[in-house]
Parts: sequence; C-alpha cells; structure tokens
Amino acid sequence: MREVAIIGIGQTKIEENWNQSIREIAVDAIHKALKDAGRASAEGLFVGNMMSGILDMQNNLSMLITDHAGLKNIESVKIDAACGSGGAALRSALMAVASGELQSALALGVEKMTDRHPHEVTAALATAADADFEVEMGLTFIGLNALIMRRYMYEFGWKHADFAPFAINAHANAMHNPYARLHQRISTEDFEKSAMIATPINLLDASPIGDGAAALYIVPAETLHDNTRILIAGSASATDTLATHDRTDPLFLSAAYRSSQEAYKQAGVGPGEIDVFELHDAFTIMSVLSLEACGFAGRGQGICLGLDGDILPTGRVPITTRGGLKARGHPVGATGVYQLVEVVQQLRGECGDTQVPDAHIGMAQNIGGSGATIVTHILKREG
Amino acid sequence: MREVAIIGIGQTKIEENWNQSIREIAVDAIHKALKDAGRASAEGLFVGNMMSGILDMQNNLSMLITDHAGLKNIESVKIDAACGSGGAALRSALMAVASGELQSALALGVEKMTDRHPHEVTAALATAADADFEVEMGLTFIGLNALIMRRYMYEFGWKHADFAPFAINAHANAMHNPYARLHQRISTEDFEKSAMIATPINLLDASPIGDGAAALYIVPAETLHDNTRILIAGSASATDTLATHDRTDPLFLSAAYRSSQEAYKQAGVGPGEIDVFELHDAFTIMSVLSLEACGFAGRGQGICLGLDGDILPTGRVPITTRGGLKARGHPVGATGVYQLVEVVQQLRGECGDTQVPDAHIGMAQNIGGSGATIVTHILKREG
Repeated sequence: MREVAIIGIGQTKIEENWNQSIREIAVDAIHKALKDAGRASAEGLFVGNMMSGILDMQNNLSMLITDHAGLKNIESVKIDAACGSGGAALRSALMAVASGELQSALALGVEKMTDRHPHEVTAALATAADADFEVEMGLTFIGLNALIMRRYMYEFGWKHADFAPFAINAHANAMHNPYARLHQRISTEDFEKSAMIATPINLLDASPIGDGAAALYIVPAETLHDNTRILIAGSASATDTLATHDRTDPLFLSAAYRSSQEAYKQAGVGPGEIDVFELHDAFTIMSVLSLEACGFAGRGQGICLGLDGDILPTGRVPITTRGGLKARGHPVGATGVYQLVEVVQQLRGECGDTQVPDAHIGMAQNIGGSGATIVTHILKREG
Repeated sequence: MREVAIIGIGQTKIEENWNQSIREIAVDAIHKALKDAGRASAEGLFVGNMMSGILDMQNNLSMLITDHAGLKNIESVKIDAACGSGGAALRSALMAVASGELQSALALGVEKMTDRHPHEVTAALATAADADFEVEMGLTFIGLNALIMRRYMYEFGWKHADFAPFAINAHANAMHNPYARLHQRISTEDFEKSAMIATPINLLDASPIGDGAAALYIVPAETLHDNTRILIAGSASATDTLATHDRTDPLFLSAAYRSSQEAYKQAGVGPGEIDVFELHDAFTIMSVLSLEACGFAGRGQGICLGLDGDILPTGRVPITTRGGLKARGHPVGATGVYQLVEVVQQLRGECGDTQVPDAHIGMAQNIGGSGATIVTHILKREG
C-alpha cells in the first residue's frame, strides 16, 4: 500500500443545531475541508454515521451529502460501525486511496441527534448494543458502562472521585476549542455533586450528544511536495464480542489492545512516543480502560494518569486536548473524525493554549459499542 | 491493485422468514460461503445492509454478525448505499484485499424486512430517497418509479403490455432457483390483469421484498493454484443526483453508464462479450433503463430486448437468469450480493435449466436509490 497524507480538515461547532439539517452541517464540514486542502472536489466520499435512518428518516445518506455538496459523479458510500463509524470511515477512505483505486478521498463523520426527544435518542443509541440479548433486558448504553465502571471500582479499589481529573481536564481544554459543545470549567466539587444517572456514572462522567460534522481530505503522500506532511502512519481496526457479557474480562478492551498494537507496529513506534492521544472518553471509565489497553498504564492503574496530571496538555500522555467526547461533545458517528481533525491540529501546532509542545506523533482511537469495534490511527508529522 | 478471486458463495432462501432473526440468516449465508470456500474464517467482514436500524432496532450490525458467526477478532464494518449496499459491500471488501491490507474477506448482504407491517416497510424504503424534498412531498419509492415509467412510455410510445416479457422471464427462471421468493409462472394475461399499485406500475412490474442473506468469499488470485478461477475483472461505483427531479434526463441512468463503462474498461470487454447480466429489476422499467445505459440497446429501445426474446437464458443478453429481483426477490441490502452469487453460479455452470451455455463473462449491477448509486462488477471465469 502506498503512503497517504491528510491535507485538509473541516469541522462544525457541536451544538443543539436546530437551524441546520444533517445535509447542511455535513456540507459545511466538507466545504471547509476542501478549502483547507485547496481542492475543488475529491474522487470519493466515505461517510461515517450511525443513526440517520432512525433519527432523520434518511438512509442513502452518503448520496444525499455527495449531491448537496456539489461533488458530481464521485464514488460515495456510508460506513456504520456505531460510535466507531468516524474512524472506520477514514479507514475505508484510506484503503481506497492506498490501494490506488482513488487518487483523493474525503472521510466525513456526521450525526444529527438533537431534533428528537431524549428518550428516542437513548433508544437509538441502544441499537449499538445487542437488540435481542442486551436491550431486551432493559440495558441502555449508559447502563452497560455503569456496570463496567462499578466492576472496575470493586476490582481495583478506586472510588468515584478518583475519576474526576478526566472530566476536569476535558472541560478545561474545551474552553479553548471554539467548536466544542460545552464551555464551562468544572471543579472536583462540581464532579462529586453532579446528578447521578446510572450509579456510579453521574452527569459529569458522561459525554453530551450533539449535532456535528467533521471531515478529512486525503491524498497519496507521493503526490505532495510540501516540506511538511501529515502522514497516516498506522491504521488498524479490531473487534471484540458485541455483548459485554460474552467477554471473559469485561475490564480489558481487547480490541483496543489489538488495534493499537497493530497501529504501533505499522508506525514503528510505541506508547512512549505518542505525543498526543485523542481517546474515546464517552464515559470517564472508558478513558481509563483505553489508557490501560493501549499500554500507557498497567491494569487498574490507568486512573493514576489522571490523578498525577499526566493527561494534561503539558503532561506525559496528553488526552482530550480539545475537550474530548466529554466537553467537545459526542455526535456519535462524527466523533471519530473530530478526534482525527484534532490530532491534525495538534501536529500542525494550531492548538494555542492546549497545544502539546512539539507534537510530532498523535494517536486517535474510536470505539463502537462498549468496546466491540475499535479503530486506531497514528498520524505523524514529517518535516 | 492485485487481482482478486471469488472462491466461496452462500445464500439463504428469500422468504417471509418468521423463524429466524437477522443475525441467524446472516450467519447461515456466511457459514455456507465459508464451507464452499473451504475456509474456517476470514480476515474481514463487509456487511451490506440498509434498514436494520429502523426495522430491527439493530445498528452495529456487522459486529453482531461477526460475533455470532464465530469470526473472532476480525475487521468488520457495515456499508450502506441503500438498495446498492450489497454491491458496495463487495467493492469495499475488494479494496481491502486488493490493497494488500487483508488476505481474505467476506462480503455479506443481508436484510430482514417481513417482521414489520407493510406501511412501516414502505416508510423505511422511502428513507433511500430525499427525506426533505421527495418523501415530505408524499413520494414513496414505487411512486418515484411510476413517474419514470410513465415518462418513458410517453417519450418513446411504448404501452404497458410491452414490459410484460421482463416479468415473465424472471418468473420462469425463478422456477429453477430453490432460493427464490416466488415460484409461480406468469403469462401475458396475468401481467395485464395484475392489480395496479401506482399507475402505470402494477403488482407484476414490481419486485417483492423478503428476508435474505447472501455471501461471497474473496482472496488474492495469486494465492490460488486451481485450474479454474472466478476473477473480479471489473469493479466500479458511480453516482447521480439523489433526487430524480434534479436530473436533466430522468430516463438515462448516467451512473449506470459511467460505472459500466469503467468496469468494461477494467475488464477489457464490451457489452457484446457479456454472457450473462444480472441487472437490478426492482421494477420492469429499471431493467429497460439499465440495458440502455449499459450499451445493450439504444435509447427507447431497451424494451425490444424483451419483446424479441433476447433476455432469455438462451438469448443474446440473458438477464435475471435466477429470477432477478422480480421473482428471486429483493431483500434490499442483500440483493447486490445475491446477483453476484448468481453470476458465480452461471460461470461455474451450476444453473441447470437456466444455465447460459458456456458462460465465461458475467456482469452484476446493483442500484441504490432511483439510480443514485450504481455499482457494477464484471466477473470472468479463467480456465
């Protein structure tokens, strides 16, 4: 496979956007990425989205967006891997360009979630779990994560307040990201007093949904003659059982382990060389499990990275530097592309107050289901 | 890109299957394809499906199926291009294998449609059209096709009965396909007397929905040492506007033209060398338009291939040799894979009474929306 570079990024502010439809936010992100790349069109569009069929009564979404973005006659397809759809969309685009089939491609993530009543959104989100054997039993997505978090606290002896640094860091970083959903600093006290949702997960453990779209423009690296290039140095997707109850160890994200190991191998690096890590902090517990599975901490010790300040932009393993799912927001199928856009921003040095000093190598990890599909990408700045 | 071969096929009978869930029919087709290929697993699973989120309240479908098929730790993703999802799934699998990223892959098409009330299914099918500018106006999918058919009859002076041979041929061929939804011969009189649905489309112009799953197993051709190989000689996807009203000429399937031309070029053949053509006869009018766009007939003349008997298994351009969408059935996201499975059966010489004599080169064309996304594959038997 030939090397592929990211030459354009675009994103919309994540919010309750009642003024624009799903096609409009998608087109907005695409046009920004085209402009950033200095291109008029692309040969392919790969759309990551999970719920447009249910929440917008719109399937054939990639076609709708292709058409309304004015991208004539190109190849276009929608990719669904639940909350991992965004990362999976880049991976599909990457294979199309790396294989030589296409000379350029856009990877888009988009989700429009706030036009519906919250109970409809909760039901739609639950479609990422096993309809017959999890959802039928009354489990929602937050319920599943609450079970995992409770078990983690029991196994390793941590208390709920120990998770606070993950939420506090995300909120602090989002203050400097104009595209973030939440601009509101929080304290340890706020975290501890926050409303309980599904014990032990409270409101500040959980990421907010939102409407958003983000896009990446990729081309074969060999076609570029710039001094500085952002290369996709590693890309891997791995799967675990869909239902959490089928796992021998529900506290180990084996798909995160396998996809990160494969991505490290491709990029020729290890966890120690990752300057910035945009992980999938849908809930604070998921940050902890991701850090452990990707080799940044031992089993039961991921939480220490928060307590010790290692996760801050100036720390050893900076995470959620633009706010993460927790504060930038989690427009499900779009999230994976937001993460990648943010890693590109870090590698370009565009992050101002939350810039990781001299960031050269960044990783983004996108999770579908409660750890079922995990896509990891490593980006490298060359030059 | 390296050459890729199809070494395994599997399919389930298309029917109102109230005894099996979507995961069960999917697993059935996968296990048949694995057995046919003589393999225990594959490195990737690419699932074509349109409506599981709406009709089964199940997203993350590729994960569910991967898990329940016992395919551990593999890459897995769902592809949605509406009714063109099946063809698009093979194309994604092809790029993954051709690029060198994977050494083997399964392309699966699956749809479970009959557990719901027909009005729910009609609404779900309409999500393939433009929700804001077509469906809001009251258009269903059959309504859209009726407008196109009426315009065709007006422009070129054909009458409704002239479309009969397409339905009659499909039903006659399905008599010999044990996996077909309908086993019922029909006559010209049946066709003319059939119940009107959306003028001028009557019941026998339209394909039945159903529950079904079909699978293909692909590997790099270089790894095979068999005397006979089925190669994917051409693969192309093209798009048109999503809304029919945005097209300058709604009677010309420009995406069919462009994707077939590209596939012909890759395969080094022209329409005259295609021995069998599994086209997307969701409605009789679509057969006619596909034949014209792919170069088998001039504008307004596609209908003559039916009237002259050219479309029969013994004719010049055999189509729907296993029953087509019309009589084999149209489980939407699965259809594109059924078409490809049937072309493989023809190239292997397994089609008995509807075998096309000495079939070496076959084409399958899968349409998403009313001509919006069109995926064309050309398969060649070598040896």
